[in-house]
Parts: sequence; C-alpha cells; structure tokens
Amino acid sequence: MKMIEGGVCAAKGFSAGGIHCGIRKNRTKRDLALIVSEKKAAAAAVYTTNLVKGAPLTVTKKHISDGYAQAVICNSGNANTCNANGIEIAEQMSFLLAEKLGIDASDVIVGSTGVIGQPLDITPIKDGMAELCASVNGNGSSEAAEAIMTTDTVKKEVAVEFEIGGKICHLGGIAKGSGMIHPNMATMLVFITTDCSISPEMLQKALSGDIKNTFNMVSVDGDTSTNDMVSVLANGLAGNEMITEDNDDFKAFMKALNTVTMALCRILAGDGEGATKLLECKVEGAKTEAIAKTVAKSIICSSLTKAAMFGADANWGRVLCAIGYSGADVDVTKIDVYFESTKGKILVCKNGAGVDFSEETAKEILLEKEIDILVFLNDGDFNATAWGCDLTYDYVKINGDYRT
Amino acid sequence: MKMIEGGVCAAKGFSAGGIHCGIRKNRTKRDLALIVSEKKAAAAAVYTTNLVKGAPLTVTKKHISDGYAQAVICNSGNANTCNANGIEIAEQMSFLLAEKLGIDASDVIVGSTGVIGQPLDITPIKDGMAELCASVNGNGSSEAAEAIMTTDTVKKEVAVEFEIGGKICHLGGIAKGSGMIHPNMATMLVFITTDCSISPEMLQKALSGDIKNTFNMVSVDGDTSTNDMVSVLANGLAGNEMITEDNDDFKAFMKALNTVTMALCRILAGDGEGATKLLECKVEGAKTEAIAKTVAKSIICSSLTKAAMFGADANWGRVLCAIGYSGADVDVTKIDVYFESTKGKILVCKNGAGVDFSEETAKEILLEKEIDILVFLNDGDFNATAWGCDLTYDYVKINGDYRT
Repeated sequence: MKMIEGGVCAAKGFSAGGIHCGIRKNRTKRDLALIVSEKKAAAAAVYTTNLVKGAPLTVTKKHISDGYAQAVICNSGNANTCNANGIEIAEQMSFLLAEKLGIDASDVIVGSTGVIGQPLDITPIKDGMAELCASVNGNGSSEAAEAIMTTDTVKKEVAVEFEIGGKICHLGGIAKGSGMIHPNMATMLVFITTDCSISPEMLQKALSGDIKNTFNMVSVDGDTSTNDMVSVLANGLAGNEMITEDNDDFKAFMKALNTVTMALCRILAGDGEGATKLLECKVEGAKTEAIAKTVAKSIICSSLTKAAMFGADANWGRVLCAIGYSGADVDVTKIDVYFESTKGKILVCKNGAGVDFSEETAKEILLEKEIDILVFLNDGDFNATAWGCDLTYDYVKINGDYRT
Repeated sequence: MKMIEGGVCAAKGFSAGGIHCGIRKNRTKRDLALIVSEKKAAAAAVYTTNLVKGAPLTVTKKHISDGYAQAVICNSGNANTCNANGIEIAEQMSFLLAEKLGIDASDVIVGSTGVIGQPLDITPIKDGMAELCASVNGNGSSEAAEAIMTTDTVKKEVAVEFEIGGKICHLGGIAKGSGMIHPNMATMLVFITTDCSISPEMLQKALSGDIKNTFNMVSVDGDTSTNDMVSVLANGLAGNEMITEDNDDFKAFMKALNTVTMALCRILAGDGEGATKLLECKVEGAKTEAIAKTVAKSIICSSLTKAAMFGADANWGRVLCAIGYSGADVDVTKIDVYFESTKGKILVCKNGAGVDFSEETAKEILLEKEIDILVFLNDGDFNATAWGCDLTYDYVKINGDYRT
C-alpha cells in the first residue's frame, strides 16, 4: 500500500469540485462542494449520536437506505440544523443536484456545516448549481476539500493505493474539522471514495468497525457535533472481485480504509480550533480494550492537560488526574508516564509517583508540534490511541465570537 | 435565617487562623490554615471519586471514621498527592498539630492543595506549627480562607444564623477553587463549621444529600480533582436538642447548610480559573431529576458554550448541541431557551428551532457578569441548576504554565 495524491478523486471514476455560491459573505471562500461517481456506488455512512441531528443527516440516511448513492453535495457556512424547514431544504439540495446530473435524488448524500439554528436559504445553492456541476473534474478534490472547511486552517485530503486480488484499488477521503469535535459513533464531516468493489453491507461493516479506533478516538473540545457524518462511496471500477464476506480481501480493504482514516484523524486533531500542537496519547497494558480507550480519551479531553501542553509544561499530575477520574478500572500505583517528541522521550512518572527528571529536557521535548503522551498501565495486554490538540488562546478567541 | 459575617468562626466555639510557613516561595501568600473547635465536634466529609486520591483524604477518612474531630489543618502550594511518602507526611501534619493543641491526632482533618506529584517537605510545617497555633482567634476565618487559596482571586466565606428548637445556631464555611473543578460526589476544598448539635450520622446524611444539588452541580473545567473534599464540624455549642433523626430540626439544618453551600458554589464558579462571568444554568420541565441535572451540567461543561459566553455571543446552537449530546432522554422539538441577566431576558430558541431576536439586546444581556441560561424542556416536572463560568484566555494562560 502507498500514500498517493488526489483525495476523493484518487479512485477511478470519481470527480469533484467546489465553488463559492454565496452562503458565506466572504467571496473568496468556497462554500459548496460536490463529489460525483460516474456510476452508482455502494454507500455506507455513520452519523453523530447527538439527539439534536442536522437535517442533512436525516435525509442522507433515508437516501442511502438501499445501500447505494452516486453523488455528495455539501455546503459550509450553515449547518441547516434546528431549523423548522431543514429537511425540506436538504431534500431540495438533493433534488436540484439530481435534476442537473440526471440521477435520482435518492442517490444523493447531503451534508451541511456551519452555524446552527439559522435558516438555510436555498437561493444561492439553486443559482449556483450549474456552476457547481460544471466545476467537477478529476483533479477537483482540493476544491471540494476547501469548500467544506469552516474554522479549519488546512485542507484535509488523504489517499492510498492498494491491491486486491491482483487489481489496483484506490481509496481517498476529505475531511473538515475543527471545533465541536468529540465524535461518538461517528464524527465531523468526512467523505471517502474508493474504486474497490465491495457490497454495501461489507462497506458499512468496514466503516462501522474502523471509526471505533479512528474518528471516535479524536477530541478537540469535548463537544459532539450535531452534524457529524462519515460516508464512503465504493463504485467498483477497480475491477476486483466484489468483496461480500469477511475474507482476506476485506482485511486488505480495512487496512486501506484505516490508513486513510487514521491519517485524517491526525490532521483533524492537529488542526483543532486554535491548536498549536497535535497530541497523540498511547495507552498500553490495560486489562481490557475499553479501559485503554477510556483512559486515552480522558487524557486527550482534559482541559488542564491540554493547556499544560500548550505551555510546554511537563505537568504530568494533570495526566494522572485525568486517568483517575476517567471511570476506568486501573491500578494507579502501577502507572508509568512518558512524554515524547522528535526531540526525545522522558520518563516523568513511575508507579504512579513522580520521578526526578530534567525540566529543561522536558521543555525541549514539549516545545515540538507533535507530542506523544505514553501511558503504561502495566496491568494487561490491551492498547489504545487517541488524538487531540492543545487548548490555546485562539480556541477561546475563535469560539468567543464564532457567529459574527 | 439570615446571612452573617464570620465564615468558619461564625459558629460558637470555633476559631481559625492562617500563616505563611514557607511551602510557597511567595512570602506574602499564606500557605497553612487551621480551624479549631473548643470541644470535640461531630464530623462528616465527602471526598473526590477520582481513583487518584490525595494522601490527606485517606488520612482524614481514617481519622473521622469514629464520627468526630476537633481541628482542621490545610496547606496550599502542594497537593501531597502521587508522592511515595504522602500518607506519612499527612499523618505527621496531624501529629504535630495534635501535640501542640493537646488533642488526639485522630481528631485532625488534613487537607492539601496545589501541585500534584512533588514531595511535600514537612520542615516548614513543623517549624511553623507554633506560629500557626498562636494565630487562631475568633475572627480568623479570613486568614484561614486566604491560606487555602491557590489560583483563587477572591476569598470564599459564607455564614448564616438560623434557629432550631428556640436556640440560635450558626453555620459557616470557607472554600477554595478554582481550577480542576468538576466535582463528582464531593469537591474542591470546603470546610464548614456549625454550633448546631447534630449526631455524626445525621451530619453525614445532611452533607451527602446536600452536595448532590450544590457542589456536584458545579464545573469549571470538567477536570475532577484528586484532592476534593468537603468537611463539616458540628460542636453542638448552640445548645439545641441534638438532631438524631430526619425531623423538622433536620430540615431546618439542611436548609441552613444548603444556603451556605449554594452561596459557596456561586462564588466558586464565578471565580473559576480565568473566569469573567458566573454562568447559572436552570433546567425546568424534565421527565426526571436525573435528566434535568444531566442537561444542566452538560451545558455548563460545554467548552463551546463557555467560550461563546466569554464573547457575549448569543450562540444558542451551542446550548442545543450540548443538550443533544448529554445522553439525557429529551424531546428536542419541545425545548425553549432564554438568556437572562440583570439587563433583561431574551428568548432565543422555541421548540428546538431559532426565533428572531435582537442581537443587540442579547449582547447587552450577555455583557453582564452573571448570566442565567434558562432551558425549558416542557416534558415533565423536574428541575435542576448547575453553576459554571466562561472559558477565557486567562484559563489557558493560568494552566499553560501552572507549575512555574
């Protein structure tokens, strides 16, 4: 398997594009994205568990209930959530696109991201539909990735090439963060495409299995969004024998999917709102996988740990504290903690108590952009990894006045 | 019942004091507090549920297992937690104090607050013990309140006078915040004294019942501390007939206790690390009390809601989002939300969807120092209130470099 360029256009038969249609006031920021497959594709998606659900998610769920879809339309600048006519607007977006592309409205996946609770005007979307459809091309992944960005500071695209049954397959995705990120069962907006041939059932199985260890282990701010969604379209153009069961081909597909989603997780976490650092917390030696995950996520979510990392302060007591209140069954007296970056690795806590360490070395390690927090529970054989970011002045700034 | 001055010295027979003994480098900051009752008092306490527990809590729990205590000693500047010899040091603190006061070491409540994982040197405490004991007096509550402060910006003292069976009783407390505040079963450090006569069992019942609606409904940053503790000493000097059952006298005592703890909650939340605003979230019309509490606490804990309040931004979508991911069983389409302060009250969300409102009026309301977030679930008869604060640049600053 190798990493390649191309994002959602890396897979055969997919094209994409993005335009500014006028949902956002800033005319230099694209706000409407489109991804199209030249043939109908197997489709799978996972959604937020927030009881307040964006209208586009309800519509998408209905549309892909038959296991297939052919296009994705997604706007930024407005979440189309908590609006009286949200469903109607999301259906109109599907209908207008389907009409222009000559496909069924029920083969459209719809996404929206932005402010909650402000009616989404269909006019700019309707007026921009011709331009949007004209914008798609085989190199358009970047424009689509741009068009779904909100407070993101970098475009998020990843793709891989892999082989199944002698056939070259491709799988790529685009994602947006970067606040209200604390997925639970599903997450933020991620659109993935592949030319691998796989049945809708196995595609859903692959996605549902994957996110438990990838997107569901990311947190920027503990706030689970209303509009989180990850979808995958698989159009089968790679020509491999269709994957219909949990065999070696399925495992190879899972590996490709996991490579892309894990890379997107790291980009998402590192570009969390206001973030200056990517935090990766690796927990080893837990009695169960659930314990390992709970501990890793508790640390990544701790405001105090996040702020300490922003200040490059080796305040490992914050880490121990977060482990202690996580609710996980651990033996505190067995815990070892290290901080690590490209500058080195330092032991700061042994058997649940502090050890002498060089504050200077620790500072040097923690001043890097990517920090690993390594926790050894020394209590079993299960591991987990979670991704997050530091808590910064800019997070407060961005969210102190998000709407204006 | 009336609010009075005096803090922990308001009740008959209690004296208090606080000195700088040298645990902290800053010589102008007191770091060692003492509260003494002239006779042995019924004692009750609740503790953090964090698995990482401060050594002083373990020692205190042992000391008051017989239901009685006579003095409280508490240092700031070091939490005496995650240290190999923590228990030993906490026992030494008790012993040194008991020796000087001529009481049993097992009648001493010990508390510590500050950095986790740095050995606590007993020397300054030992050397300062004579000065500490000499410092106590009937007006010394303020000095004790000062000596337990860490990043707190205001001293926290509250007291009330009330009547039980024709006898005038008093109950007062001191508290410290102001980060790592997200109590669960117990909280931060709070020391309460009363001259009311009440059995240890009923005192514990009163305290355990009270905190569920007071301290456990406060959150500054979602981080449950390792050293949280609330303790009450009741020395019976008011001369009322001892409360030994759940009768009218007990109810009157509960009301007094609740008045003091609720006032302390508001001060604690309003003085959360970096806070510029006190947030009070009142949830009404829930199907169960548990739902009302879950919803109120989820809103208070939401980083996005907290940052929006800092920016005086009426971004009610953040509130709906926090309700949605709280895990509580609510009907989103019935929810109404208002923002309120001394400047007025404004409806921002009706039946789960946005309503037209004046951004100007909302801004004026949200620029105040105390903001009420009112949520009507319109789904039942249960209510709850939670207290928190806004998320600010200063929270990040304080915790980006807490140890140095």
